[in-house]
Amino acid sequence: MLVVMQEGATEAQIQKIVGRLMEDGFDVHRSSGVVHTVLGGVGGKSHFDTGIISVMDGVKEVHRIVSPYKLAARAFKPEGSIIKIGDVEIGGDKVVVMAGPCSVENRDQIERSADIVAEGGAKIMRGGAFKPRSSPYSFQGLGEEGLQMMRAAADRRRLLVISEVMDAVQIPLLAAYSDILQIGARNMQNFTLLRELGKIRKPVMLKRGPAATVEELLLSAEYFMSGGNYDVILCERGIRTFENYTRNTFDVSAIPVVQKLSHLPIVGDPSHGTGRRDMVPSMARAAVAAGADGIIMEVHHDPDHAFSDGAQSLFPEQYYELMGQLRLIATAVGKSI
Amino acid sequence: MLVVMQEGATEAQIQKIVGRLMEDGFDVHRSSGVVHTVLGGVGGKSHFDTGIISVMDGVKEVHRIVSPYKLAARAFKPEGSIIKIGDVEIGGDKVVVMAGPCSVENRDQIERSADIVAEGGAKIMRGGAFKPRSSPYSFQGLGEEGLQMMRAAADRRRLLVISEVMDAVQIPLLAAYSDILQIGARNMQNFTLLRELGKIRKPVMLKRGPAATVEELLLSAEYFMSGGNYDVILCERGIRTFENYTRNTFDVSAIPVVQKLSHLPIVGDPSHGTGRRDMVPSMARAAVAAGADGIIMEVHHDPDHAFSDGAQSLFPEQYYELMGQLRLIATAVGKSI
Amino acid sequence: MLVVMQEGATEAQIQKIVGRLMEDGFDVHRSSGVVHTVLGGVGGKSHFDTGIISVMDGVKEVHRIVSPYKLAARAFKPEGSIIKIGDVEIGGDKVVVMAGPCSVENRDQIERSADIVAEGGAKIMRGGAFKPRSSPYSFQGLGEEGLQMMRAAADRRRLLVISEVMDAVQIPLLAAYSDILQIGARNMQNFTLLRELGKIRKPVMLKRGPAATVEELLLSAEYFMSGGNYDVILCERGIRTFENYTRNTFDVSAIPVVQKLSHLPIVGDPSHGTGRRDMVPSMARAAVAAGADGIIMEVHHDPDHAFSDGAQSLFPEQYYELMGQLRLIATAVGKSI
Amino acid sequence: MLVVMQEGATEAQIQKIVGRLMEDGFDVHRSSGVVHTVLGGVGGKSHFDTGIISVMDGVKEVHRIVSPYKLAARAFKPEGSIIKIGDVEIGGDKVVVMAGPCSVENRDQIERSADIVAEGGAKIMRGGAFKPRSSPYSFQGLGEEGLQMMRAAADRRRLLVISEVMDAVQIPLLAAYSDILQIGARNMQNFTLLRELGKIRKPVMLKRGPAATVEELLLSAEYFMSGGNYDVILCERGIRTFENYTRNTFDVSAIPVVQKLSHLPIVGDPSHGTGRRDMVPSMARAAVAAGADGIIMEVHHDPDHAFSDGAQSLFPEQYYELMGQLRLIATAVGKSI
Repeated sequence: MLVVMQEGATEAQIQKIVGRLMEDGFDVHRSSGVVHTVLGGVGGKSHFDTGIISVMDGVKEVHRIVSPYKLAARAFKPEGSIIKIGDVEIGGDKVVVMAGPCSVENRDQIERSADIVAEGGAKIMRGGAFKPRSSPYSFQGLGEEGLQMMRAAADRRRLLVISEVMDAVQIPLLAAYSDILQIGARNMQNFTLLRELGKIRKPVMLKRGPAATVEELLLSAEYFMSGGNYDVILCERGIRTFENYTRNTFDVSAIPVVQKLSHLPIVGDPSHGTGRRDMVPSMARAAVAAGADGIIMEVHHDPDHAFSDGAQSLFPEQYYELMGQLRLIATAVGKSI
Repeated sequence: MLVVMQEGATEAQIQKIVGRLMEDGFDVHRSSGVVHTVLGGVGGKSHFDTGIISVMDGVKEVHRIVSPYKLAARAFKPEGSIIKIGDVEIGGDKVVVMAGPCSVENRDQIERSADIVAEGGAKIMRGGAFKPRSSPYSFQGLGEEGLQMMRAAADRRRLLVISEVMDAVQIPLLAAYSDILQIGARNMQNFTLLRELGKIRKPVMLKRGPAATVEELLLSAEYFMSGGNYDVILCERGIRTFENYTRNTFDVSAIPVVQKLSHLPIVGDPSHGTGRRDMVPSMARAAVAAGADGIIMEVHHDPDHAFSDGAQSLFPEQYYELMGQLRLIATAVGKSI
Repeated sequence: MLVVMQEGATEAQIQKIVGRLMEDGFDVHRSSGVVHTVLGGVGGKSHFDTGIISVMDGVKEVHRIVSPYKLAARAFKPEGSIIKIGDVEIGGDKVVVMAGPCSVENRDQIERSADIVAEGGAKIMRGGAFKPRSSPYSFQGLGEEGLQMMRAAADRRRLLVISEVMDAVQIPLLAAYSDILQIGARNMQNFTLLRELGKIRKPVMLKRGPAATVEELLLSAEYFMSGGNYDVILCERGIRTFENYTRNTFDVSAIPVVQKLSHLPIVGDPSHGTGRRDMVPSMARAAVAAGADGIIMEVHHDPDHAFSDGAQSLFPEQYYELMGQLRLIATAVGKSI
Repeated sequence: MLVVMQEGATEAQIQKIVGRLMEDGFDVHRSSGVVHTVLGGVGGKSHFDTGIISVMDGVKEVHRIVSPYKLAARAFKPEGSIIKIGDVEIGGDKVVVMAGPCSVENRDQIERSADIVAEGGAKIMRGGAFKPRSSPYSFQGLGEEGLQMMRAAADRRRLLVISEVMDAVQIPLLAAYSDILQIGARNMQNFTLLRELGKIRKPVMLKRGPAATVEELLLSAEYFMSGGNYDVILCERGIRTFENYTRNTFDVSAIPVVQKLSHLPIVGDPSHGTGRRDMVPSMARAAVAAGADGIIMEVHHDPDHAFSDGAQSLFPEQYYELMGQLRLIATAVGKSI
């Protein structure tokens, strides 16, 4: 930790900081400049709350030196992580596509979805079984029955399954039916859920919260990696900004930033990232061009009548056309789909 | 619902929208202007997803007319709601102050806290028993034992208790020990939790998420009011913006906005709103001056050694001095503490 | 204009709104629903300030129907605009690349730059001659001498020139030496400057301000198009958000949004969009994949010693490699470089 | 400057950074920790672009130690600056109120305005003479004639005058008619204008841009203080965030933040900060309660027919009532109006 004292900080103020740091086990090195004194704190607890120092009298600013995340950091695995599920690899030279409807609605819909998904060339089918929605009057999902239907449909077309877990009590159920458990953006900092997911041995896809920095996303990943589950996929799905033509601002630059800071694979979700079907193809292409390890997107056989997220679900033909473009772009960046 | 068609929208496009709306039970009125055709949809499901219409061909924009929230709207109770707990009223002419440490740390600390809180004149003591933290290595709270300690300390000083519920399974426990259940900012859209809280008959304080608009806050309130629990207090605690000197940007204007749109009381939390002890007094004063129905803030007998949130906890003397200022400001706006 | 009255708005409130609208020449149609009365205002001044209505008693919300921009709207030229300068076309099937240093530093540097730019295949050279910087002590640009040097270097390599105009008094000078005049992000709403640029007949590239919505960008374009200058290129260069690993958040989705709402060409600037050289290649690729009509980026023969913006300037080899990737991606979206 | 190297940075990478810093005159101190090497750079140019270092290979992060602003920093004048104009002092124990219409519209209006302003107890009248507006079809201001009218009206009621300067060429005109020159939010980083204003000897009020941090505001103040003009008043007027019920988010916390970091007086502008008349009184009260040195607000004898900004202009009675409240609140924080 580096503590920069204000210009004119008194010796008593400096001593108080030094004392406080030593209390928590830090060795303190002092460097007196013409204008500012800088204190370097070494050792001490890694999760020490630097905020306590930053509001003490005479302090100008405090910088952590050691990243608060270690297991998620690039340095932990410089060559990058590859998550293997059956014969699908996420994080290597392939761009993995996950596609499907927002919700599992009924058997017919999910069977048709599996056909569409497989036909377009995606390897993983998405679909939600638990849909606690912003309106209490909206469709809330089919629960376990929906998971069964999706598993059957996916198996028939040899697809993997990804589905969202909303609560720790649902973990066994989701783990039984799906290959990847998704943590939604609103749960990115639901630490109870993260801790429980750290105990299982199934891949997890963690979505960035709409108000979370990339560093906070990595901290959440660290949270359950520290429990021993290292099969983590990250997902950029849009952040909240003042621009409101799109529902969120899809932060494409988060893709190379994650790849610089972490060894974990990063997937782009242009459906939630934009909230508008007419923006999904261009943003899916952008994500692949930026180097994403995968794309997750919503496609529906009849988006105008989808039970949820119809506005951002692609028509089947749009999806097929887009997959063709993504293949070309993947090639341009040295990958393949 | 009002659907504004693009300049040059074709008759076929218009007919398709009309048909889609009628399918869902809307009566459609058409008004053809020189430049734009406007369709008014009346009736239909209140939770109809207008997004589906907004991405259809030829549509310029769609506006909901009827608010997606009803029970939380000012029109539902134009005179404003007053939540009564014992002899404390929240929402009337009093400015209610809630104060206390971030976490219950041990018996001695919480007893001292109760003394400080009561001495300053606050009526309600705050304190957390479950602290799932961003670092998995940090203090995680004392759980039920902490709640017992806080209840005892509060009772001794005749204070009410507010404490945070993190998960639906904790509801009975929290309901047993505290007078108000707090929903944290990260759980503002945890609909599973909101639904369960709608079933109990205890006052709840709902905090605004860091990326949530005021309208979304009201939608979340609606969520559990629809379950029958009308004793809801709202809380502004800062939003995420590009300014990073403060941890969040404390959106003081949310206070009058909530009071215009809703009948529910609104409380300001300058501790989380700024994240810095040196900014808390000015922001607490601002919130009261803006008309807040209450203030919740962190105070600790020894902030430099608090187990959590020390940086934003007031020293006891700061808290006493601030309470004096708040009394004067409350008077200036026709209220009292 | 559509005025939605609040639930329970009184007849007197409604009459007051009707009267106010009629004063300004609007015909008013009234539609009374079960819950809300809606007033439709037709005619009246296009620049009528709807804010005045929105704060009147009893008003819930006001929606403009007619876009505040007309000349910049897609409907004005549905097939899209192509700006022709010599044999370069911006807005058609080509992706036009503009590259060069942030500032013109001296003759040697700008001559070397021209060689690098031309070698990579860009058609337009960028370079600034006026650099009023955030620090008053930094390099402020070479002025006219710099423009002369850049023109000479560009002519030698048959490149077009784009350079920024900071103030209306500089217009004749910039118009004499460059083929496209750039309006910087900070001047996007400098209406004095916009008005003067509306009077000349040179192409202008207008950069989006860091706090401007796409709609506001189009309004600024309208500003000088209303003066008769229709040769406008728009440029996305990053918006200000809470994420601060990158200097700005490069809003790639602005590219398809502009293309939906407007007929004007849109160019991406990944250099300012990210502020970091290591993020520029991925974001340049993303912009082309998203359908951008062009890319503007900074390249320098020795970025570590550039007088300005060195951190976001590419090394020549990075630029060459990137151009190769961009050519492949352009093909994938049906264009060429 | 502190340069923190990445975990695993090579000796060659470290040497390259050291070399680059020494080139620019820095002395470099090296401190090798178990995980990270930290380089401290002392001396060198104060405006050295640290970005160049931050993108070099092996660098984790770079922190400036010395503030980029000196003259605007609190340390330069720890007791705080007081700007004296006639018998008005800004920055001391008084809360100075500036009020008046958005634009000077005609003689009758500005005379009535002067009466209203004076009656309420404000000492300074505001009013704009140059109004380059977002719509090219809107009222553009009366120019010099408007300034003459305002000066005459203000003199009759013994009020000071503040008015906005849009362009360097207008400086002599504005300086002739007004006591304080205002720099609008859009011009906060118009460095040409700032430099010219640094040469005159009239007080200037600098408004924070909607996407500017407080630190950037101070940097802009530094810009013209470095020219010798030390009579600077800062103004918070709202920042751009995702919340759009209000036009901007009025960042009340900027007031104590400025007072901590700088010695310059800070004024709040709740009219532009909210954009809505119904939110102005509560936000004006909040700003005074937070410790603002002044308030600037719009008041009009007939806001529903104001030529500009009618939606955010107070009715005279609202203004009178508000002034009464502000006096009480000022007292509560140890000041007076």
